[in-house]
Amino acid sequence: MPLIDATTRGVHVIAVTPFAGDGALDLDSLDRVTDLYLGAGAEGLTILGMMGEAPKLTQAESRAVAARVIARAGGRPVVVGVSAPGLAAIGELTRAVMDLGAAGVMVAPPAGLRTDESILGYYALVAETAGAGVPLVVQDFPLASGVQISPATFGRIVAGVPQVVMLKHEDWPGLAKITAIRAAEAAGQRRVSILCGNGGLFLPEEMARGADGAMTGFAFPEMMVGVVAAAAAGDMDRAQDLFDAYLPLVRYEQQPGIGLAARKHALWRRGAIASPAQRRPGQVLDAAGAAEVDRLIARQERRLRALGQG
Amino acid sequence: MPLIDATTRGVHVIAVTPFAGDGALDLDSLDRVTDLYLGAGAEGLTILGMMGEAPKLTQAESRAVAARVIARAGGRPVVVGVSAPGLAAIGELTRAVMDLGAAGVMVAPPAGLRTDESILGYYALVAETAGAGVPLVVQDFPLASGVQISPATFGRIVAGVPQVVMLKHEDWPGLAKITAIRAAEAAGQRRVSILCGNGGLFLPEEMARGADGAMTGFAFPEMMVGVVAAAAAGDMDRAQDLFDAYLPLVRYEQQPGIGLAARKHALWRRGAIASPAQRRPGQVLDAAGAAEVDRLIARQERRLRALGQG
Amino acid sequence: MPLIDATTRGVHVIAVTPFAGDGALDLDSLDRVTDLYLGAGAEGLTILGMMGEAPKLTQAESRAVAARVIARAGGRPVVVGVSAPGLAAIGELTRAVMDLGAAGVMVAPPAGLRTDESILGYYALVAETAGAGVPLVVQDFPLASGVQISPATFGRIVAGVPQVVMLKHEDWPGLAKITAIRAAEAAGQRRVSILCGNGGLFLPEEMARGADGAMTGFAFPEMMVGVVAAAAAGDMDRAQDLFDAYLPLVRYEQQPGIGLAARKHALWRRGAIASPAQRRPGQVLDAAGAAEVDRLIARQERRLRALGQG
Amino acid sequence: MPLIDATTRGVHVIAVTPFAGDGALDLDSLDRVTDLYLGAGAEGLTILGMMGEAPKLTQAESRAVAARVIARAGGRPVVVGVSAPGLAAIGELTRAVMDLGAAGVMVAPPAGLRTDESILGYYALVAETAGAGVPLVVQDFPLASGVQISPATFGRIVAGVPQVVMLKHEDWPGLAKITAIRAAEAAGQRRVSILCGNGGLFLPEEMARGADGAMTGFAFPEMMVGVVAAAAAGDMDRAQDLFDAYLPLVRYEQQPGIGLAARKHALWRRGAIASPAQRRPGQVLDAAGAAEVDRLIARQERRLRALGQG
Repeated sequence: MPLIDATTRGVHVIAVTPFAGDGALDLDSLDRVTDLYLGAGAEGLTILGMMGEAPKLTQAESRAVAARVIARAGGRPVVVGVSAPGLAAIGELTRAVMDLGAAGVMVAPPAGLRTDESILGYYALVAETAGAGVPLVVQDFPLASGVQISPATFGRIVAGVPQVVMLKHEDWPGLAKITAIRAAEAAGQRRVSILCGNGGLFLPEEMARGADGAMTGFAFPEMMVGVVAAAAAGDMDRAQDLFDAYLPLVRYEQQPGIGLAARKHALWRRGAIASPAQRRPGQVLDAAGAAEVDRLIARQERRLRALGQG
Repeated sequence: MPLIDATTRGVHVIAVTPFAGDGALDLDSLDRVTDLYLGAGAEGLTILGMMGEAPKLTQAESRAVAARVIARAGGRPVVVGVSAPGLAAIGELTRAVMDLGAAGVMVAPPAGLRTDESILGYYALVAETAGAGVPLVVQDFPLASGVQISPATFGRIVAGVPQVVMLKHEDWPGLAKITAIRAAEAAGQRRVSILCGNGGLFLPEEMARGADGAMTGFAFPEMMVGVVAAAAAGDMDRAQDLFDAYLPLVRYEQQPGIGLAARKHALWRRGAIASPAQRRPGQVLDAAGAAEVDRLIARQERRLRALGQG
Repeated sequence: MPLIDATTRGVHVIAVTPFAGDGALDLDSLDRVTDLYLGAGAEGLTILGMMGEAPKLTQAESRAVAARVIARAGGRPVVVGVSAPGLAAIGELTRAVMDLGAAGVMVAPPAGLRTDESILGYYALVAETAGAGVPLVVQDFPLASGVQISPATFGRIVAGVPQVVMLKHEDWPGLAKITAIRAAEAAGQRRVSILCGNGGLFLPEEMARGADGAMTGFAFPEMMVGVVAAAAAGDMDRAQDLFDAYLPLVRYEQQPGIGLAARKHALWRRGAIASPAQRRPGQVLDAAGAAEVDRLIARQERRLRALGQG
Repeated sequence: MPLIDATTRGVHVIAVTPFAGDGALDLDSLDRVTDLYLGAGAEGLTILGMMGEAPKLTQAESRAVAARVIARAGGRPVVVGVSAPGLAAIGELTRAVMDLGAAGVMVAPPAGLRTDESILGYYALVAETAGAGVPLVVQDFPLASGVQISPATFGRIVAGVPQVVMLKHEDWPGLAKITAIRAAEAAGQRRVSILCGNGGLFLPEEMARGADGAMTGFAFPEMMVGVVAAAAAGDMDRAQDLFDAYLPLVRYEQQPGIGLAARKHALWRRGAIASPAQRRPGQVLDAAGAAEVDRLIARQERRLRALGQG
């Protein structure tokens, strides 16, 4: 199976985990949403991230999800989020999913890390725990983790932990961080792949500053595929026009907590998942919220038609 | 001078505080930016909020800013942010600005408050400190303060602290909170004015759910004025069309930290302030960021022309 | 096997989890340290708490530890910490350990809870997840969790979640909370057992205010047994004299992070565990720290002899 | 007036700020408590720290307190806490108190700092703001500030900001940090004075590891004076015996929030302040708490008599 590396590009969708209304895993919907993501042109998938409700799964369920998606992805790379409070659980899940054919694993720093030294030390331990040869993605999401990784500290991680091949860039604001990392690479720092999160909210600017693609879960991944392709072709106006058409919904999905409810509602409207339910505890879209999402989707379709995309 | 009350509506712009490149207060620019805000149709202003770099001012400077803006506002209401680590400073500044003709004061909860009881107790102390008759705005901005005020707790504040006449709504996500408060009011809770923050990022939805207007600092307040007017007239499509034209820049300004640099850059481009400088410590827009803002403004102008607004 | 209930009293030691120097579980040492705890007069044990390095174990290891301690405890009650980021893992481990004969489970609130309503809702979900009949311990440790549970909110939990039979009291400061809860019970609130943590640092005062005992892991549990017995007999001077003799070491063990290293060093000196090692990542006592602990133990022995306890 | 420098030693008491029951400043009590501190053998004082309720004072009150204490101290050094949300207020108060004869100023990092680079940058700005020649104390109190300063980062501050002459060491646990800083100094890092906080809870160990004294506010500063003197004389057993006699009360005062109420109660019992009141909002010692403090003082006196100190 393919592994990610420092040259990985394109759109790698953060997959939702579908549940039935009673909270049971819905593996048929998981197949369908996998098909939707890949059918939209995604290069790969990332599963069991925060937006995949990973902490709500048992380890056995996590393995079942990984097995199902990897099988369905037909050889396209699947990165697995393995963040956990302790290294033992990280190691156990990493071994399981790499055996199943995962392309690499993604780890966010635990909330308590405060000094640069402790962040660096943590990723060294993670690499040792994951085992030689397992590609690592550093998830840099300070809004959720409370951990700030400066470009200089990220450079020390890159220098000290060769298994780190990718940054899931989700700092916010983080545009200057992309510029700083690419400048450091121009001055000799080892290159990594930078794929951007935050629901795609800054994707045109991120691509212009040197990102390699997106790793996030917006319910219409065709937007990200189109923006990344247009940016790769150097047509930033085209990229931005397409982006702008989707932006009202991107913005809505980017709300903490309720954003996942909006995302699942949109995927349910698209027929990809049988229920928009989250496993508890989870936020529920009220009636007004559901109507807001529906309205934004309808307006989006009109605008895409005006762009000649409908 | 006018006081705010529970019926206050419209757009009340959170004003920037202009500085020269050396960090000195620039009161001439303060006049010009006041004119820009009011010329765009704002009903009032709010000064010395977080985006006004209030903690970077001495108390004497704070009073100078308040005096200048109140004089320039020509009778339109000016709310003053008076949040401080201690009640003595809150009381001192409140007395000073109310004497100068402020329309009310705005207070965010201090970061350490954790229980609902302690939040309620805090606002009771603030009201006593401010003194009878001073209208209070509760600034509800958990992303910055770390303090979560549930709708039920806000209801207890409304019941227990009659001076609270307004919610500066900046929870995120907070749409359901507006709906919950309006529902409680329909069931008998005392009505307050709800003005929304977050740079206007959810303004159409907020108006549809019952907000009375905006209290935020987007550099093109004419957007907010237009959206609030269209919503008040019941034309939500018109509101959203206008909003969408500005959304790429709204989104850019909404980045924590660097967003204020983008906002000041835009106001500087508009000729309202002589320098985009923040007083230190402050984030500086890099060259790529300045180009990004300029590009978004140019695209915004094209789109407004297409809407017949240019 | 016995279950805890609202009348549970005495000392329930928070057990360390012994590891070999290479990080492997050391089950023989686990037997010995269990013997030490019970031999000192403890009424019961609590395993897989934070000081038991629970997040560093896999689920299989957690079950192995629970099985071993429950077997060794010879019928004395063993509470198991099952806190986890998601309810599925809590439910899975709860079922496993209750089947093994645990006396109940302990759950700390997740770090993100901010409003009183969300805390109450969380414990209702935990009770439903654990299943009817499983006794619950609320771990109230805001220094670690960031979640503040006021006495009023705890009262709502007691009223709404009948399975909650015990408070592991680890608020700091928390003496007034014990008084408030006992006063509420005098006014009709359902009684719960209150066992106190914080390494025993306030045990005499806690007993005087109405606590039922201790649930904490100080390396010399005979101190806690003696203090609880003296307090139960109404001899507070005797309780305090005994406490004071151990206090210099209690204080040293109560340091965050390094305190566990000191505790394991002391248990290793006592011959209960074969190695003071923590599983990584963990703090290591430097040479000066080891000497400090040794010195405090030697001074403690002298002082106990002077008290006629040596 | 004297300035502190890198050779400053001894006990520098963090002074309480006395208030009347109605919240008014009580300057007569401020004189008496200053006399008590210096009469106990303190080398100097530190005012307007967190335990001095500094954020509850207006700037005018802060200056009044500083003027009064500096006048009363009769030439002994008085450090002033000037931490504030913005540099302008820091600069304003620094200039005022240095003009009044302060010995230096103390600054804690603001809560938001997360990367080592931002901490270093902050202290460089503070030094520039304070002005050349003003000695700076870095207050390292992560429990309150949330900011972790590693020994390496502190070394960079020492190298980059020559005005920093002292560390108020209040990390917890922090014994290894003292050892690390002294080791770095042995390897060439510029020496600073290290005075320890945390209410003296680890003072014997801190002195043994190389601290120069204490900077904290325990209500019986004669304990700290005696411990520092015995440690300086190399008699660590004597230091510890004295310490142990006071430890039950030291521990009690070290509780967050309520600890200040206990401290003021003890100083009121000693006749140094006319009222134990804190300015609101502040925690109030309940009747049981007052009795606990009284009991601990009575036991302390008995034990000191047994040591031949009564």
